[in-house]
Amino acid sequence: MSGDRPKRVTFREEGPREGFQIESQLFPLADRAALVEALADSGLASIQVSSFVHPKKVPQMADAEALFAAIRRRPGVHYDGLWLNERGFSRARAAQGVDLAGTLLAYVSDAFARRNNDCSAAEMLARQAHWIDLYAEAGVPLSRAILVTAFGCCFEGEIAPERTVQTAVAIERLCRERGQRLPEITLADTVGWANPLAVRRLVGLVREALPDIAIGLHLHDTRGLGAANVMAALEMGVDRFDSSVAGLGGCPFAEHGDRGAAGNICTEDMVFLCHELGIETGIDLERLVEAAQLAERILGRRLNGRLMHAGSLAAWRAAGSRAA
Amino acid sequence: MSGDRPKRVTFREEGPREGFQIESQLFPLADRAALVEALADSGLASIQVSSFVHPKKVPQMADAEALFAAIRRRPGVHYDGLWLNERGFSRARAAQGVDLAGTLLAYVSDAFARRNNDCSAAEMLARQAHWIDLYAEAGVPLSRAILVTAFGCCFEGEIAPERTVQTAVAIERLCRERGQRLPEITLADTVGWANPLAVRRLVGLVREALPDIAIGLHLHDTRGLGAANVMAALEMGVDRFDSSVAGLGGCPFAEHGDRGAAGNICTEDMVFLCHELGIETGIDLERLVEAAQLAERILGRRLNGRLMHAGSLAAWRAAGSRAA
Repeated sequence: MSGDRPKRVTFREEGPREGFQIESQLFPLADRAALVEALADSGLASIQVSSFVHPKKVPQMADAEALFAAIRRRPGVHYDGLWLNERGFSRARAAQGVDLAGTLLAYVSDAFARRNNDCSAAEMLARQAHWIDLYAEAGVPLSRAILVTAFGCCFEGEIAPERTVQTAVAIERLCRERGQRLPEITLADTVGWANPLAVRRLVGLVREALPDIAIGLHLHDTRGLGAANVMAALEMGVDRFDSSVAGLGGCPFAEHGDRGAAGNICTEDMVFLCHELGIETGIDLERLVEAAQLAERILGRRLNGRLMHAGSLAAWRAAGSRAA
Repeated sequence: MSGDRPKRVTFREEGPREGFQIESQLFPLADRAALVEALADSGLASIQVSSFVHPKKVPQMADAEALFAAIRRRPGVHYDGLWLNERGFSRARAAQGVDLAGTLLAYVSDAFARRNNDCSAAEMLARQAHWIDLYAEAGVPLSRAILVTAFGCCFEGEIAPERTVQTAVAIERLCRERGQRLPEITLADTVGWANPLAVRRLVGLVREALPDIAIGLHLHDTRGLGAANVMAALEMGVDRFDSSVAGLGGCPFAEHGDRGAAGNICTEDMVFLCHELGIETGIDLERLVEAAQLAERILGRRLNGRLMHAGSLAAWRAAGSRAA
């Protein structure tokens, strides 16, 4: 299987949004802009900066426009925004400095769709037709469809891989029917159910069903299997992952609402994994670790990343070769 | 490769020693005894309780005898102790409730041996002959040889796998020459250098060189690759791991001496991995998570384990089937 590992992997950084959206406290705009700039300086090619959601519901993201405008932009970096309805999309289009990408959203779990979106999974899927047209009209290229609860759901339990494949096939067909090409399916382990075998199985089945579409993974480290799941995906040839610096983010469905439960897979730890395997990422790991340490200073508490506390191997390797 | 996964895996719990030895504070004996008892009640078959080392150098372990004596023993559990010299071994033999096992210790890195033991790796290896005889005289069966810095060393850098294989072969020969059979080689990633490919390569090479000896792994999660390394080992058929409840322990060689750097791989997270893969462990995961939560209460700060904060999938699965 090792021959299937990609030569190069892309990490899409979601820490600035995931990390601060889950906080009850508000953090200064200047700090968040500095974090985005530090992440871009490390070589990350895609950074989700903020979301255009209701400012009363999510006050942490109320200053999305101002934050995007404040960022010293680095050429070649995609500064991503998130929206969940047309109002949000309009705000993102009107804002300065948002790199628009047409993201579709589908639920595999019906119960999760109802809780999160107040509609069935089938209704949510049907609504994507409107988004496909909207993006086309706005000249925003389709980027990907994210399949929420692709591995399991805290309300439905296990999600049979066939259901996820069906959802993937359905949304791809929807794009084709409307004259658009869907470049990527992102399988999201929204609530931390994936394990390495499930990753292998699901990636294999989706690829079999949709051989011409790239597969991305959005993984969480909720139950400590994040690194093992990334490794399984790499050996299936997956070359794009959503992740969060310092492991920022959390899990709204953790036991007893534990606000410190682990969030997304940690960008720098997974970049380290890739580099140790000889896979290129285009990222300067030492600078990324510095960005993780900046995130920790901003949030003012110990974060979940490992490498940011232990240090990478670069200094030890250099010392070892000097000693030799 | 998946056909090579073992049907059953044994976890050797080291949290009670690793976790408290690294603390600057002393914790009440009753709390530590309660933790050992909770771990035994979860079904763990081997628990390292304390070490018989110099009470002035390691005051946290000064009450080793009293701790062993205080534990309500559970039949079938191996209550392990650690010693590094003959004085410590005598104390362990004289103490009540210590299940003696003859552990040998060898360094692959010479620089690490000098720092840790004030002798060369070759001298340390030669000294093991005396330990083999000592164990035989005392009627203590040889259990394993632990190869420290088997993957890398913070003073020497990368450790070529051939050097680790040589050390494994040398210590096995030493046992044979003295009429003893070495049952296991434990490859220790002492300072967090291993990655999944390195695990595969080294396990493969050691097995090739010593096909009749079991291979165990002592892994740390220092740089976030613990779960990926365990998965790689499982797929090589490795069926025994040292680990720490709640990820207790740390790394004395972390950057800037960061005392919160990740320690050993987390027992309950790795038991969860095994169970999700259909591998038996003999452990009641829910009770083990409770033991991890007890460890957190005793230490009074957030610990590194993931599952202990997010909760296992058992309750969600049950809710899912009720809803279905």
